Amino acid sequence: MLDKKTVAVFGLGSMGCGMAASVRKAGHLTYGFDTDAARVVQFHASDAPDLDAVAGDIDVAVVVVLNAAQVAAVLFGDAGVAPRMKPGAVVMVCATVPPDFARDMAGRCAACGLHYLDAPISGGAAKAASGDLSIMAAGDPAAFAAAQPVLDATAATVFSLGDDAGAGSAMKAVNQLLAGVHIAAMAEAVTFAMTQGISPDQFLQVIPQCAGTSWMLENRAPHIASGDYAPRSQVNIWPKDLGIVLDIAKGAGFNAPITTVALDQYKAAVDMGLGPQDDAAVAKVYARQAAITLPGEKE
Amino acid sequence: MLDKKTVAVFGLGSMGCGMAASVRKAGHLTYGFDTDAARVVQFHASDAPDLDAVAGDIDVAVVVVLNAAQVAAVLFGDAGVAPRMKPGAVVMVCATVPPDFARDMAGRCAACGLHYLDAPISGGAAKAASGDLSIMAAGDPAAFAAAQPVLDATAATVFSLGDDAGAGSAMKAVNQLLAGVHIAAMAEAVTFAMTQGISPDQFLQVIPQCAGTSWMLENRAPHIASGDYAPRSQVNIWPKDLGIVLDIAKGAGFNAPITTVALDQYKAAVDMGLGPQDDAAVAKVYARQAAITLPGEKE
Repeated sequence: MLDKKTVAVFGLGSMGCGMAASVRKAGHLTYGFDTDAARVVQFHASDAPDLDAVAGDIDVAVVVVLNAAQVAAVLFGDAGVAPRMKPGAVVMVCATVPPDFARDMAGRCAACGLHYLDAPISGGAAKAASGDLSIMAAGDPAAFAAAQPVLDATAATVFSLGDDAGAGSAMKAVNQLLAGVHIAAMAEAVTFAMTQGISPDQFLQVIPQCAGTSWMLENRAPHIASGDYAPRSQVNIWPKDLGIVLDIAKGAGFNAPITTVALDQYKAAVDMGLGPQDDAAVAKVYARQAAITLPGEKE
Repeated sequence: MLDKKTVAVFGLGSMGCGMAASVRKAGHLTYGFDTDAARVVQFHASDAPDLDAVAGDIDVAVVVVLNAAQVAAVLFGDAGVAPRMKPGAVVMVCATVPPDFARDMAGRCAACGLHYLDAPISGGAAKAASGDLSIMAAGDPAAFAAAQPVLDATAATVFSLGDDAGAGSAMKAVNQLLAGVHIAAMAEAVTFAMTQGISPDQFLQVIPQCAGTSWMLENRAPHIASGDYAPRSQVNIWPKDLGIVLDIAKGAGFNAPITTVALDQYKAAVDMGLGPQDDAAVAKVYARQAAITLPGEKE
């Protein structure tokens, strides 16, 4: 029988909205909060819930916002929820943040009597909506136990990365390093191929069956081949996430030259006004440099 | 029934030796040639065949040497085989070479009355030995037809990339761009992870199931985790192959900044004396910079 919990999801973007729906579908009392009131109304199909009234009831607070500053504001800002939650409740932070920040938040939550699960997510909006995310989680056993109903409702795979908050965020940074580099490398390869008379369609017929393939290549290169840059995941994600990677690397005295160059390509894409487009649009940086016409663009 | 052909394989390194064995196993009369006489003796289990005596009998000449200069020497050097082959025979070049070079060789072979198949290979020594290579092939229909017995014996997948020599080499360059970048990015990510307390084993438990994975990552990262740098494919391959990519790119006025930086990492590995090691050893460039001790290394 379901142990019915009270869950609050902070951040109702594409990931948070899908996670909140999955939690609700699993039978938990689910509140959604967002700075965009329209999203809150849409999720509840009614007026927004009153955080002041429900904060003390929350068993699991799931934070699915854009960055560390927003996490800090949700938890410990002027109307921060953490100090108002009941002892023994758990804060589960799914945003991509620096490991040191996760450790800091865990300590501040502990001071409020709260458990903390460092729980970055991977998988995209579709898997958020279907409850099939991968979650890279770290926290003490009590944090895992307290968050379990939400993990069950939202994740196909939970990687348990140890007792210490920060380990989940570190693994997420490693994954983002690779994912961001692979998208940019795919863009470099597709456009290079076009200079040699190989179309994106021919590229897709061959490379996914060869040693040069990657998960991101197979997921994103079709967007270029079809000229479809409707954002599944925006270019804007990458200056943020690769910036986090390089900040962490710098703190460790680690040079990451390939990541650095990939970041430059995303920054160039943002400078071209492509930030809100699908991240496969980083190919347009290469196309402009080499005067290539991508599929779907005007000759 | 087998149409028994006379096949000569030039270059008996790990790829050529495997291909020659696969051709022989398919029932064709197979000669092997190499500048290293010991390899020839080993393949034939006897004295080397006399190229002068057999050149006129060859139906398919398969060239599996290291680079364009060696291809040119085999075909048109002082003892070059092409001018001595019979009209209607086919030259199948499997080395990674620039597309312009492939077009030049095709033209010179045509002048000798020979067909030319531009046929770079992918898959590694194990697949060469088992006859399961991927071959990125371009040439006119007569070239494909003449080479078919060797394609049947050596390849699991043949990509037919059109009538014009050069298209196979172009696709191979695209694949090498990606493969070389992905190995170096994997090395960057594994060592970055280590600075954050994530071991290569933990990395391998998580990343292959996430969006950051690549074919090369899954193939090469285990070499780092086990500290095993016995060469399946050498670091030395990459300055050559990424150099070809960048030469082609330069000729097309195309900037490939990620490839350029990956090449720098392989050059640094060669400068450290790692050229003959497995290409996963590019991780040692990162480890030295950041004072990380990789698995299997002395503390």
